[in-house]
Amino acid sequence: MNNKGMRIKPQLPRGMRDFLPDAMQKRQAVFRKIQDIFEKYGFAPLETPAIERLDVLTGKYGEESDRLIFKILKRGDALGEKGTELSDMGLRYDLTVPLGRVVAMHAQNIKLPFKRYQMQPVWRAEKPQRGRFREFYQCDVDIVGIEDISADAEIMALVHEILEVLGLPNFRIHFNHRKILSGMAEVLDVPTSKANLFFVTLDKMDKVGFAGVKREMEERGISREAIAGLENFSKISGDAETVFEMTATMLKSSGTGKEGIEETKKLYDLAKALNIPEKHLCFDIFLARGLEYYTGPIYESVIKDPPIGSLTGGGRYDELIGMFLGTHIPATGTSIGIERILAILDELDLMPETRSCVEVLVAYTAASLQEAAMELTATLRKAGLKTEVYLSPSRLKKQLRYADTRGIPFAVIMGEEEWNSRQIILRNMVKKSQQLVQADNLPQTIGEAVSCQVAEFKQSSNP
Amino acid sequence: MNNKGMRIKPQLPRGMRDFLPDAMQKRQAVFRKIQDIFEKYGFAPLETPAIERLDVLTGKYGEESDRLIFKILKRGDALGEKGTELSDMGLRYDLTVPLGRVVAMHAQNIKLPFKRYQMQPVWRAEKPQRGRFREFYQCDVDIVGIEDISADAEIMALVHEILEVLGLPNFRIHFNHRKILSGMAEVLDVPTSKANLFFVTLDKMDKVGFAGVKREMEERGISREAIAGLENFSKISGDAETVFEMTATMLKSSGTGKEGIEETKKLYDLAKALNIPEKHLCFDIFLARGLEYYTGPIYESVIKDPPIGSLTGGGRYDELIGMFLGTHIPATGTSIGIERILAILDELDLMPETRSCVEVLVAYTAASLQEAAMELTATLRKAGLKTEVYLSPSRLKKQLRYADTRGIPFAVIMGEEEWNSRQIILRNMVKKSQQLVQADNLPQTIGEAVSCQVAEFKQSSNP
Repeated sequence: MNNKGMRIKPQLPRGMRDFLPDAMQKRQAVFRKIQDIFEKYGFAPLETPAIERLDVLTGKYGEESDRLIFKILKRGDALGEKGTELSDMGLRYDLTVPLGRVVAMHAQNIKLPFKRYQMQPVWRAEKPQRGRFREFYQCDVDIVGIEDISADAEIMALVHEILEVLGLPNFRIHFNHRKILSGMAEVLDVPTSKANLFFVTLDKMDKVGFAGVKREMEERGISREAIAGLENFSKISGDAETVFEMTATMLKSSGTGKEGIEETKKLYDLAKALNIPEKHLCFDIFLARGLEYYTGPIYESVIKDPPIGSLTGGGRYDELIGMFLGTHIPATGTSIGIERILAILDELDLMPETRSCVEVLVAYTAASLQEAAMELTATLRKAGLKTEVYLSPSRLKKQLRYADTRGIPFAVIMGEEEWNSRQIILRNMVKKSQQLVQADNLPQTIGEAVSCQVAEFKQSSNP
Repeated sequence: MNNKGMRIKPQLPRGMRDFLPDAMQKRQAVFRKIQDIFEKYGFAPLETPAIERLDVLTGKYGEESDRLIFKILKRGDALGEKGTELSDMGLRYDLTVPLGRVVAMHAQNIKLPFKRYQMQPVWRAEKPQRGRFREFYQCDVDIVGIEDISADAEIMALVHEILEVLGLPNFRIHFNHRKILSGMAEVLDVPTSKANLFFVTLDKMDKVGFAGVKREMEERGISREAIAGLENFSKISGDAETVFEMTATMLKSSGTGKEGIEETKKLYDLAKALNIPEKHLCFDIFLARGLEYYTGPIYESVIKDPPIGSLTGGGRYDELIGMFLGTHIPATGTSIGIERILAILDELDLMPETRSCVEVLVAYTAASLQEAAMELTATLRKAGLKTEVYLSPSRLKKQLRYADTRGIPFAVIMGEEEWNSRQIILRNMVKKSQQLVQADNLPQTIGEAVSCQVAEFKQSSNP
């Protein structure tokens, strides 16, 4: 079919991947578990197109990210003419900017609070490397239109339930508040121009420790006095209440800092009220998160072992959503690092069961039985059984091997002789046992026998 | 956040659309019904990346389609230099070419027969018009690796069950065979060079009738004799058996034609054996389908009223999948026109229920109760109830209006006085009735009361 009649090499662009059925079934199982929890908490789904206008996409995250946007080549005659742009559209880079556009564009159809989740791929032209891809799913959940800190607690509770239901071990939700960070910068006299640099460096405390942070701060020209003051903050330890108290004392000269502490205490209380156990919560005064757009509480969930970084991350960003409308619209939410979570579930062998969901294979020993086999297949499906029929007359051995390879637990074998007396063989592929089943009342007899054994099988394989 | 500090107009590129929660919930419900049937028939999911290499995408469907591929602008320094290509990647145009690439690229991990389904968006730079978009979901289901015609029957049975389960009225699955069309061209002496033109025109028989087809054939230079012969074919009518017999008689001088008839008869018998009622089947000797790549049976499902054209369409294409490997790999399958089906379900008011799936709203009458309300929310969720808590202290009226607008059937109202004696008000938002519930055994009492009433409510709203 190729113009030149040459064979085309089957390959993918760099950083792209296929999900074959085994992988897809795992992904679907995990996606659905997460979706169920979103819905239990009253979040509703949103989808936006892959292609957005470049004026919507760019200028939100800084120049470096803008360079990573995949741009769509303009079409038509004008293309390539001097002075014309090559592109005015690009592929979605994240799910937050589209959310902002949606809230502004559909303002009349969206009632606030808008509690939405979105699970769709995004594209970034990053240097492909192990575990990093140029197309990957993001999974975002946000509450738009609520100023109250209970919304932040609700997001944290949601994250907690998701990680809990997926069976992730020993995770903790770290939380902090931008106002606490600002207060810290204030009492340490960090100049405003260096505040963001200061926060970004602070954020590395859990990875490189105070010594590492100190070195980087020195390199970045943070004053000796500020670093010395920071050392005092780094010595704060104890349970959450103690940390609150000590931090409050050290921030007492900063109005912003005190506000931050008060709000964070309330967040902590509401999070516990929403059933997050204390041991899963960690007030972390060095948690900063990179993005400049956060304005209130920030939160991140982390597994220490294996040390894979954060599984989810988010916070309050009251100025971003409104930028398309030029108004203030409060918002808080998190990204669920679905690709990283899938990887860790796989690594820890915590993936949901992904056996073939087919329950019965209809096999037949003679081509003359093909039509009867099709009829039986339809009957079994009508009885609610997930049924495959072997799709071309073949040796029985080959058909049974097919059932084995695909993990189909039962085979119904039609033989000419048995079929003449309306009997069929029901074979348990796992136990390798078989029985002759009278087929007078075909739908029910087989249906019941099989579904009963399937239940037994499922029980034994899910101890 | 915009570089120039200007407000960005929130808009989408032409032909693109958002799916807000109401639309998404409908889409998800329909997608899941279809997925359940795929799985019942033993098909497994596949996903491929949105971006493919241009050498994989182009040269498959003719130049006209190639022009509709969205191309990705190359990045980096070389861009724009003379003689360099502006693009070497593009967005997926359909799901069939990626399937061919996958089968070739992962040959070692894919065991044939490969029964896969794929539900993902595709992009086409077509002129946007009412009901036609530049991004839309395709839903394909194919069996790769089976030569036997039972695979074609299986696909037809799958299509039948999907349309049946979705409740689409009066649909028929038209079927024909490329060999019958070739036989027809042979006995009518249509030159090979004009055969495809001839088929494409034939395909319009159901829309414009013989008179219309005749006119177009004349314009396209099909001989008078051929058109006269065609008129005889157009007079064939009666039940399937009669049509088979009459067509066989008229094609008796063509070996290919006779083969086509034999195979199509077998297809018809197997389709009936797989439980497709005769009234839903229509042997249509003029069904041709546009694409040149079909090699065997072709099938299409149609609703006459409203006259919206085909809902699904497919056939056997034994040469396409193998093109990447340079080998022959038999394949048959269909596209489910999911966007068209969604539109028609909406038009005929056949959409699955899309009420808010939240069951209870926790409301509270004083800010001091916020923490207790959160605790109660967690308790209800733990009991399996889909629960929202009103996220900022507000007037009760506003909170109840929220439940009403979102279609939440129950509200739990916490008042300070009642809460002091551990009682809460349970309000049925539909009946506008309420009762005081003793909350000694909070999780169970409320959980049971609510879930019982929810069940009752669901029953009455789904007669």
